[in-house]
Amino acid sequence: MKNAAGSEERLTFRYSQRMLEMPFPSAVGHAGDAISFAEGDAYPPDMADMTASAVEALTTRRSETLQYAPRAGLPDLRRWVTDYLAKENVRVTPENVLIVNGAKHGLDLACKLFLNPGDAVIVTAPTYMTALPILRSYGPRFIQVRQDSEGLLVDEVEAELRACERNGGPFPKIIYNVFEFHNPTGVTTSEPRRARLLDLAERYNVMIVEDDPYRRIRFEGEPVPPVQALDRANRVIGLGTFAKIIAPGLRVGWVTAAPEIVRKMAVVKSDGGTCPLTQRMIVEYCRAGQLEPHIKTLVKTYEMHRDVMLEMLAKYLPEATTMRPSGGYYLWIQMPEDIDTDHLLPLAQRHGVRYLPGSRFYAAGGPRNYLRLAYSFSSVEEIQEGMRRLAAAVSKSRKAEGPGGGH
Amino acid sequence: MKNAAGSEERLTFRYSQRMLEMPFPSAVGHAGDAISFAEGDAYPPDMADMTASAVEALTTRRSETLQYAPRAGLPDLRRWVTDYLAKENVRVTPENVLIVNGAKHGLDLACKLFLNPGDAVIVTAPTYMTALPILRSYGPRFIQVRQDSEGLLVDEVEAELRACERNGGPFPKIIYNVFEFHNPTGVTTSEPRRARLLDLAERYNVMIVEDDPYRRIRFEGEPVPPVQALDRANRVIGLGTFAKIIAPGLRVGWVTAAPEIVRKMAVVKSDGGTCPLTQRMIVEYCRAGQLEPHIKTLVKTYEMHRDVMLEMLAKYLPEATTMRPSGGYYLWIQMPEDIDTDHLLPLAQRHGVRYLPGSRFYAAGGPRNYLRLAYSFSSVEEIQEGMRRLAAAVSKSRKAEGPGGGH
Repeated sequence: MKNAAGSEERLTFRYSQRMLEMPFPSAVGHAGDAISFAEGDAYPPDMADMTASAVEALTTRRSETLQYAPRAGLPDLRRWVTDYLAKENVRVTPENVLIVNGAKHGLDLACKLFLNPGDAVIVTAPTYMTALPILRSYGPRFIQVRQDSEGLLVDEVEAELRACERNGGPFPKIIYNVFEFHNPTGVTTSEPRRARLLDLAERYNVMIVEDDPYRRIRFEGEPVPPVQALDRANRVIGLGTFAKIIAPGLRVGWVTAAPEIVRKMAVVKSDGGTCPLTQRMIVEYCRAGQLEPHIKTLVKTYEMHRDVMLEMLAKYLPEATTMRPSGGYYLWIQMPEDIDTDHLLPLAQRHGVRYLPGSRFYAAGGPRNYLRLAYSFSSVEEIQEGMRRLAAAVSKSRKAEGPGGGH
Repeated sequence: MKNAAGSEERLTFRYSQRMLEMPFPSAVGHAGDAISFAEGDAYPPDMADMTASAVEALTTRRSETLQYAPRAGLPDLRRWVTDYLAKENVRVTPENVLIVNGAKHGLDLACKLFLNPGDAVIVTAPTYMTALPILRSYGPRFIQVRQDSEGLLVDEVEAELRACERNGGPFPKIIYNVFEFHNPTGVTTSEPRRARLLDLAERYNVMIVEDDPYRRIRFEGEPVPPVQALDRANRVIGLGTFAKIIAPGLRVGWVTAAPEIVRKMAVVKSDGGTCPLTQRMIVEYCRAGQLEPHIKTLVKTYEMHRDVMLEMLAKYLPEATTMRPSGGYYLWIQMPEDIDTDHLLPLAQRHGVRYLPGSRFYAAGGPRNYLRLAYSFSSVEEIQEGMRRLAAAVSKSRKAEGPGGGH
């Protein structure tokens, strides 16, 4: 049968506008025995032992765990989440909780509920790189605000909102942020700033999406109350996850929001319910009292990893600067201005070390001399060797470009 | 702080257009000891024993199964899918396979890749009710085509496409269908119709989304080759799932499509990879030779369920008509014209039986005297008792409305 347009061209795929506008950055390679500081993966020797929970789930609760699950999640897990959050002063009932396939799934649902193409979204510069394609797939306009050592600059948010007000709107729809141990910078937003941001969100009817995966991975100091703990007008959509406190592979997280939002999300979730097996394994694991000792182990490991990485940074790359994060998984490294971390990456990979270039963390452009190092996945020995390799790559790159060489 | 608009109204949620246009049908209640013919749930006594696979996955492969998974899925499972599909004459390589959180997730990704608001989608009338909110969340225009005993009426599709051609386009983007044991009607589309539809899809550059969950739940007769087995121009996006052949709760399915499509889907999937634990459990279960005997058990059970339900229908509701499906999970029942199955539902629930009214299966309106009964979940005794209850509800409804009463 003849092609209707009479040409081969008709047979290229007719993608949606969102896909045509979507940047597809090249993957950071996995090849060889490269040491990886790229992804926020869990440290393999600290993987939780979930075997007993799985056996329990698959034998005494086979009908529950192998059947379609309730769209909103297992009632036992929704209740568990409310108890867990109560300790953080977030007062929610099970009707406020939706179980999802990881926090990223929750972000996708928040976008689906609120974003029309062209709606403005406020993010920090830099922001969590994986949030960007999720947001982008809804065609938003990005407003970038900066951070300092106390976190997101609420003054900049307020200036943007006031400008909208002067222009008669429309106001941004979503403020997305990791307030506790920000990804990638490690910065924690102070309580006064959280409260002020929430006031603005209420006044201008903007939703705050509070992505909070790292809260419990704290090495020192006191946690700041979640933004949602201060929320009286249901302007916060909280995103939580078991990825960083039990295991990423279980793909179970939660959304906390107004019951109306949770009900709508459950309908457009359209996935037959989040896996009841992994939900039940988590309930059993936590009920058996294994969560808190496990988190203690993780915090000890990651604190040591952080310290070793900071030490190696000082030793091998003294011209680099970073903040010393009090928790989380990452160092956000500022390199000298002549280092373009996108250009450096292939060379670093040839030297056997992987990282994520800073450019991936900006919604709309940013400096080129930053990079993110995850200290979570690699062992102490790998961190030592990986940092040596990174320094060697930097040194090689500078020699290749010659004195005063740019690009 | 005063609300910017000075009124309470500003604090209603500013949902996206897609959410404002989305119908939210009231849930079919779960209360009491009602016998459920509503959802396509698995028969609990036939739940697979996955314990050994889980123990294997969680002990010898702990680092793999508790870590983030590769976005496209575990290589072992992608390979397994290609081998499985080769037996159905679908020739794909692992690069054509994306592992997803169930077939519905695959449909969502297909919509994300292809649909702009207003793009036309072709569906059957009736079609799978859960596909509708997924499609609707992308704001499409629906074109409904009818079916007969040989399946989807390709003549109607062709007439629609020719009309587009005369008008200079745009052509529909997606044809969505369950070709084998259609949900809800049970109809299987014949091979000549599949081939003609594929020719049309190629000629007019429309993607066919072939949702194929029930293929192996066949009681009699020979399977028809999947549409994808006939595809030479990558116009088919195949959706497969382990839900109906192992267990719904595992939430693992697959998409088969051109490598370019699979790569793009993997990026916008943005979920940290589908759960590697349930993926690995499936690989181990299948490698242990447990899949084929399990499918045999399921087919025997569901065939018996179908037979009992047909027998009870003839006994208790002789005025109802249905097709005798050769496979799948459902009976699609035509009731006399004076029965509105939406009106009947609350009464049926008070009589202790649940079903889905036919109206839920139409993208844009349809007759009111149909209903779908799933024979998968309930036992033989429950099917017998449930059908008696349904007949009692119908009889009560007619008495209440009096002779000649309509609505």
